[in-house]
Amino acid sequence: MERAEAIRRLTASKVGSIATVRPDGSPHVVPFVFAVSESGGGLLIYWCVDDKPKRSHELQRLVNIRAHPAAEIEVNRYDDDWTQLWWVRASGIAREVTLDDERERALVALATKYAPYAAHPPSGPVVAIEVDRVTGWVAGAEGGSGFS
Amino acid sequence: MERAEAIRRLTASKVGSIATVRPDGSPHVVPFVFAVSESGGGLLIYWCVDDKPKRSHELQRLVNIRAHPAAEIEVNRYDDDWTQLWWVRASGIAREVTLDDERERALVALATKYAPYAAHPPSGPVVAIEVDRVTGWVAGAEGGSGFS
Repeated sequence: MERAEAIRRLTASKVGSIATVRPDGSPHVVPFVFAVSESGGGLLIYWCVDDKPKRSHELQRLVNIRAHPAAEIEVNRYDDDWTQLWWVRASGIAREVTLDDERERALVALATKYAPYAAHPPSGPVVAIEVDRVTGWVAGAEGGSGFS
Repeated sequence: MERAEAIRRLTASKVGSIATVRPDGSPHVVPFVFAVSESGGGLLIYWCVDDKPKRSHELQRLVNIRAHPAAEIEVNRYDDDWTQLWWVRASGIAREVTLDDERERALVALATKYAPYAAHPPSGPVVAIEVDRVTGWVAGAEGGSGFS
């Protein structure tokens, strides 16, 4: 898949999965919501930590990226018709956003994409993944080969 | 979420994401199809490597688990209504299935769940994840808190 098409599908996806590595070296994966930002040729993926309920789960990701900043995310389309499958993956380095201007831009991008964020702006940390690799795969018309 | 309910949702999910760790220590995540097997109190997740097209991508997962056998998988439901969100995660140790009997059982479970596997049994390696932890999260009725 062409890079531009991969970025288009990534940007349009409402949910993805983010993998990081725990301090003990084991993999960690959770679904997440995110916004894609392209600026000056660079590709950024923003996500933020929500309030309350599952704070303990969410903080694990922050603990992980402090220990191992590499992150990889994927979005996909599943269908029982395996000729319709596709996925896009992006990997890069995650960092907590510390500048107010960038935080503001990220929250605007997230609120534009997700109505619940517009209604209730999240108060937790914002994280940026500086993407250095985007790849995509789309099923051949012959199908037969699934995700595995 | 209760363990039994988490296993029920995991088993019923057609697609998940599997995270492993590359030999260089960076995270790797791809969507995958799988079958859940419970036997003697143990929980196993089976998946297999398909034929041809994206062999190079698929082999990365095998390379990873040989170097770092820990794997984590997740399934989720996304909805624009964030009161409908849920996810289930499972982690454990991955191993390639080498016994013919177990391989046969795994392929039957996969073919029962996925029609394309019934039509075209996969010929590649089968992998088992011996699950040691299953957790689940479901959105509160108040919503407002998404996946991030």
